[in-house]
Amino acid sequence: MNNLATGKCVSCRAGEPTLTDAEIEDLLPQLNGWQTNEVNGEKRLDKVFKFRNFAQALEFTNKIGAVAEEESHHPLIITEYGRVTVAWWTHKIKGLHKNDFIMAAKTDELFEPV
Amino acid sequence: MNNLATGKCVSCRAGEPTLTDAEIEDLLPQLNGWQTNEVNGEKRLDKVFKFRNFAQALEFTNKIGAVAEEESHHPLIITEYGRVTVAWWTHKIKGLHKNDFIMAAKTDELFEPV
Repeated sequence: MNNLATGKCVSCRAGEPTLTDAEIEDLLPQLNGWQTNEVNGEKRLDKVFKFRNFAQALEFTNKIGAVAEEESHHPLIITEYGRVTVAWWTHKIKGLHKNDFIMAAKTDELFEPV
Repeated sequence: MNNLATGKCVSCRAGEPTLTDAEIEDLLPQLNGWQTNEVNGEKRLDKVFKFRNFAQALEFTNKIGAVAEEESHHPLIITEYGRVTVAWWTHKIKGLHKNDFIMAAKTDELFEPV
């Protein structure tokens, strides 16, 4: 199991700094296939997961939703036929927090390749 | 109940024509708050639904998923904290079919404002 995946989200307050580029460069290789993207000036972690149909995609969306509720940290999830795109970032600080890397790693643990 | 909402999706084959602009102009006013957008050259119907939290948003996503399975026609759904964005279009014809208007109307029927 990925070390990040065993982590717990810590409370994050508005005004906390986002991760530095150096911190992101250190954390990103600890994830599998996640990419950083910038949307509306806010850095995110994105990954696409493939499935056989819509039902399997929606099942994965629900698994992510359950972990998101447990950790009180919520992603953006795009559910389509055969595909789920997940984006993690921290709205309060308008960018990336270590919590997002923890959640990305937990998301990978939920995925069962088909 | 919206008349479109009582409709059933018909089988749609690749090569069938997309709706004409005149047909879209006729159907769109029969929906509540849906907009047409063009993404990668394919017209879609989009609408944003607001919720109090992530759990309510995900619940709505699942309701849409159930109807999508029933009708064998599947949308793109973006689930976020407090918000669900739904897009209907017909991949096979790379644009809008009357089925998409039927599914948009059915989506509205599933929504309970909070």
